[in-house]
Amino acid sequence: MKILLIGATGTIGRAIHHELKEDSEIISVGNTSGDFQMDLGDSNTIAQLYQAITDVDAVVCAAARGVVFEHLIDMNREHYIQSMQSKMLGQIDLVLQGIQYLHADASFTLTTGILNVDPIAKGSAAAMANSAVEGFVKAAAIDMPNRQRINVVSPALLTESQEKLQDFFPGYTTVPGAEVALAYRKSIFGRQTGQIIKVGWS
Amino acid sequence: MKILLIGATGTIGRAIHHELKEDSEIISVGNTSGDFQMDLGDSNTIAQLYQAITDVDAVVCAAARGVVFEHLIDMNREHYIQSMQSKMLGQIDLVLQGIQYLHADASFTLTTGILNVDPIAKGSAAAMANSAVEGFVKAAAIDMPNRQRINVVSPALLTESQEKLQDFFPGYTTVPGAEVALAYRKSIFGRQTGQIIKVGWS
Repeated sequence: MKILLIGATGTIGRAIHHELKEDSEIISVGNTSGDFQMDLGDSNTIAQLYQAITDVDAVVCAAARGVVFEHLIDMNREHYIQSMQSKMLGQIDLVLQGIQYLHADASFTLTTGILNVDPIAKGSAAAMANSAVEGFVKAAAIDMPNRQRINVVSPALLTESQEKLQDFFPGYTTVPGAEVALAYRKSIFGRQTGQIIKVGWS
Repeated sequence: MKILLIGATGTIGRAIHHELKEDSEIISVGNTSGDFQMDLGDSNTIAQLYQAITDVDAVVCAAARGVVFEHLIDMNREHYIQSMQSKMLGQIDLVLQGIQYLHADASFTLTTGILNVDPIAKGSAAAMANSAVEGFVKAAAIDMPNRQRINVVSPALLTESQEKLQDFFPGYTTVPGAEVALAYRKSIFGRQTGQIIKVGWS
């Protein structure tokens, strides 16, 4: 299994890498690190990535940046436009271009999070982006060419991020990255499509 | 109750107007018709609307235009950017600016639809926009100033639209506009907030 792993150096990306490295060939992609560089906010860099790497079986995206966390009263339209370039439009674009390059039966696994279902203060742009990706995945799944599949993993707060983020997530239960990584294995090696795979919450 | 009704001439807008006109003062807003004109894709026209109309108790948005319906394989990033200007960013912007102008206890009621949960072919941009608005509403509700409220109505296929749209919605059950309009009354006159009010489906 040849897997393109976008966001390989993040907390989730590292856990996915650890989970899959024994039985898969992983191409690591980051903004500045990894085997290849790419910016989800820039369509051209996504195209360059697909042109550079052939015979990919699965695309996994665990990257996210640029989402604005501010109180509603302090936000304007531009903050939401900025917030969706990478996590929302970037992940969608990764699929739109990927379906043209990948072979039949290939899969895409995107990443959202709990904030659109169990919201926090200042989290409206993140909630918007998460939900947008999940709605896209539900509808895209029935419109994918060549039996290609698409799912999205929505993890709870990661145990590894708890210390850093606990003031923003009061009382939230956490899930270890290793358990989150299993959801990506399920999406890649299973046959499900159009699923929002929740990890660490229900 | 003074209600700003955006999209007053659409199928849902007309039903809302009929439901509320006896006991409320309704200001109708449309792109080219109504008491005032506004374009959800243009922040400035939203600001002008709020500056022109004072003492609004409730903002209702039943407007949507510009969403692209095409197969995934025929879409690119620009199609999604176009699709979100009005239904997604426009509705969010309407709230962001509205919370600054409206008094305490005022409410906002937005509109989505069933396509992000029960998708159709060519519907991925509509699903994205619907979900984005719903995620925003869930998170914005806990961040609204001055006890202001926000909900979203998600109707099934309207009975009034069935003949025109039935080829796109095979086997979908329908709901009369008059029943959909009750959901807006519930959002405006009730005390709920952060709710996705489903009408005609579950």
